[in-house]
Amino acid sequence: MYKPNKKMGKLIIENRSEIFRPSARTERTPASVTRDILKVIDTPGMISFAGGLPDDSLFPIEDLKNIFETSVSKKGSKLFQYSDTQGHSDLRAWIADRYYPGSSADEILLTSGSQQALDLLSRYFIEEDSPILLERPSYLGAIQVFSSYAPTFIGINYGEEGPDMEELKYVLTNSSEKPKFFYCIPDFQNPSSYSYSLEIRNSISKLLLENGVPILEDTAYRELYFKEELPISLCELGPEHTISIGTFSKTLAPGLRVGWIRAPKKILKDLIIQKQSMDLHSPTLNQELVYGFVSSSKYEEHLSLIRKTYQRKSEHTFNCFQNNFGDSLPLQISKGGLFYWLEFPQEINTDLLFQKCLEKGLAAVPGSSFFVGKPERNHLRWNFSNASEEETKLGVKRLFEVYKSIQK
Amino acid sequence: MYKPNKKMGKLIIENRSEIFRPSARTERTPASVTRDILKVIDTPGMISFAGGLPDDSLFPIEDLKNIFETSVSKKGSKLFQYSDTQGHSDLRAWIADRYYPGSSADEILLTSGSQQALDLLSRYFIEEDSPILLERPSYLGAIQVFSSYAPTFIGINYGEEGPDMEELKYVLTNSSEKPKFFYCIPDFQNPSSYSYSLEIRNSISKLLLENGVPILEDTAYRELYFKEELPISLCELGPEHTISIGTFSKTLAPGLRVGWIRAPKKILKDLIIQKQSMDLHSPTLNQELVYGFVSSSKYEEHLSLIRKTYQRKSEHTFNCFQNNFGDSLPLQISKGGLFYWLEFPQEINTDLLFQKCLEKGLAAVPGSSFFVGKPERNHLRWNFSNASEEETKLGVKRLFEVYKSIQK
Repeated sequence: MYKPNKKMGKLIIENRSEIFRPSARTERTPASVTRDILKVIDTPGMISFAGGLPDDSLFPIEDLKNIFETSVSKKGSKLFQYSDTQGHSDLRAWIADRYYPGSSADEILLTSGSQQALDLLSRYFIEEDSPILLERPSYLGAIQVFSSYAPTFIGINYGEEGPDMEELKYVLTNSSEKPKFFYCIPDFQNPSSYSYSLEIRNSISKLLLENGVPILEDTAYRELYFKEELPISLCELGPEHTISIGTFSKTLAPGLRVGWIRAPKKILKDLIIQKQSMDLHSPTLNQELVYGFVSSSKYEEHLSLIRKTYQRKSEHTFNCFQNNFGDSLPLQISKGGLFYWLEFPQEINTDLLFQKCLEKGLAAVPGSSFFVGKPERNHLRWNFSNASEEETKLGVKRLFEVYKSIQK
Repeated sequence: MYKPNKKMGKLIIENRSEIFRPSARTERTPASVTRDILKVIDTPGMISFAGGLPDDSLFPIEDLKNIFETSVSKKGSKLFQYSDTQGHSDLRAWIADRYYPGSSADEILLTSGSQQALDLLSRYFIEEDSPILLERPSYLGAIQVFSSYAPTFIGINYGEEGPDMEELKYVLTNSSEKPKFFYCIPDFQNPSSYSYSLEIRNSISKLLLENGVPILEDTAYRELYFKEELPISLCELGPEHTISIGTFSKTLAPGLRVGWIRAPKKILKDLIIQKQSMDLHSPTLNQELVYGFVSSSKYEEHLSLIRKTYQRKSEHTFNCFQNNFGDSLPLQISKGGLFYWLEFPQEINTDLLFQKCLEKGLAAVPGSSFFVGKPERNHLRWNFSNASEEETKLGVKRLFEVYKSIQK
């Protein structure tokens, strides 16, 4: 046992309230609702559709075990020593090759999940009060981290084909200060599940280029299509004015915390310096495990399996909603991603619905958390990838009961 | 192969200079010298004493392999799923128990190395122009990350027994604004290798408490004593006004990126929210590997081995310096840590010495990088833990030759 050289007693602190004086940043960083919900889901009997959790029975654990074994035997101590800030060069080359035709490993920076990519890009771009554009609704983890940098949020409504182009044009023409970037999730968005049509992709890339506003494209769900691939990415359309963010959290395993940024080389240089100051580098071993798996022939099989499984789960979820709610909940069957974005009648406040659901052992995320500015309060984000079919059946039934009870 | 739905050509960007408009933060984050040096050390023939790299032949790779095997078999997919922001609860309990008598797992937050801990605490505390206290010299990775938050640095000279208490008292009495914290490395400091005496520890803890200024104590090198343990930590002396930072990078393996913060519970709550916004959580698997090893009976043996090896290497390094430089370089034999802090005569500028060294295939870190305010320019930081004895012999000889050549 470790025994410190304890030669004097502890000092007693009398008034500590003034000792720790946090920055304004601390005050303005909201706790993320989903992370808070993750804490209650361990309550006995609770069924959760709250987190964006992949189905962990699909994690290729045996393969990862074999890769670990082989890699450690081959590369040994290198996997455990300090390494380069930019990250595993073979994995960067693989990412460039697969997702960014014409780009190279030099344009990729590996991060600790896509959340760190969002933080890093916030540091790079945002000054206090900088205007930034983002979709309404948008990913709550992005809203959370952006908030800590105190920008001025400008929300653009996101509909079934993409953002409202008229609104976007109006904002670009009439902002007194040029927005720092447009943050968007064009593929099976979290939370709405909407995607951009090809036409919108073309128009939006052109419009933002003309206005000198860079795009931050978050591609987290792009691989999770059920039948048809999505149209070309914004980054491929306009690689010089688009920064792309990606992650292996949804396609492989989130616990490994491996994500990336693709940016023009000139910008990437500065991003690497920021990353260096943030945590020196992300763990080498985790990048090696990801590389070992994605570069093997098993990755395509694995993606097919995930797509099929999530499609089946989404269809089952859809059927459960149809069976319980009938026409009272307008819902289209999902084409990809992880979520249903439930739209209740205007008079239903899902913040209240959510509280009632928790009491009945059911968790999902109230829509208000996904809006900058004045929130809409009649949505609920429902994850379909994690729960079992049995749990889904029971969960939707519980939701319908709660819905009925507050409707009265 | 992945084939995107490429239905239109790329947009051509004509004037991209105005598109990316980085924040002032980007401008003020300096690239870290050591990380830049890490890039040149792969040049053929280069011998490096620059990084704070542990001896990677000591990494307990076989044990980590076994732990991986056992843990994955036992815990399965949980190790690869999203998990709690605060981190592995058993590892937190182990850290509290070993290093913070009277504290519990609730007061520990796991981070991606201690660099992330420094970033997180910067976010928590620093506003633009906030005065912060730190030692002169201090750890350059801390200076780098603090700089990106634009504080006002107040340096306190660090001598062989600890910081200059008169200077510290003077600053505390005469600052117009109360400093946000005092950042210090009381144990085998990077770069100076100095430690605080027990007397200084007592006085400094008391003085800062009286002045209502919290302490950020960085304990990275605390376990690396060769014979005698260091006196009680500042955190144990004053747990309510001290935040402690630790890491497994020096005692186990830096590539795993596992570090921690110990803070009073009230503060920790807000730190967890910041961490959540930064990267959701650090990788579960890495924390499990660390826990598996440190909680086993092998950890004490391993620490003994590291201490003995580094002591031998430090003695060998010391002898090489004696044999080459004789009395022209004042040097005391090391008692712990990873570095010798070489002090040359005032007329030697180690920034120039460093450049000449690189030309001769030798890397170490010029002292100027470790100073806030006006730098001292006659030191060189020399790592002794990583190079082999043969390399050290050759390296010191090269240094002496370069030194002689610029002295003329």
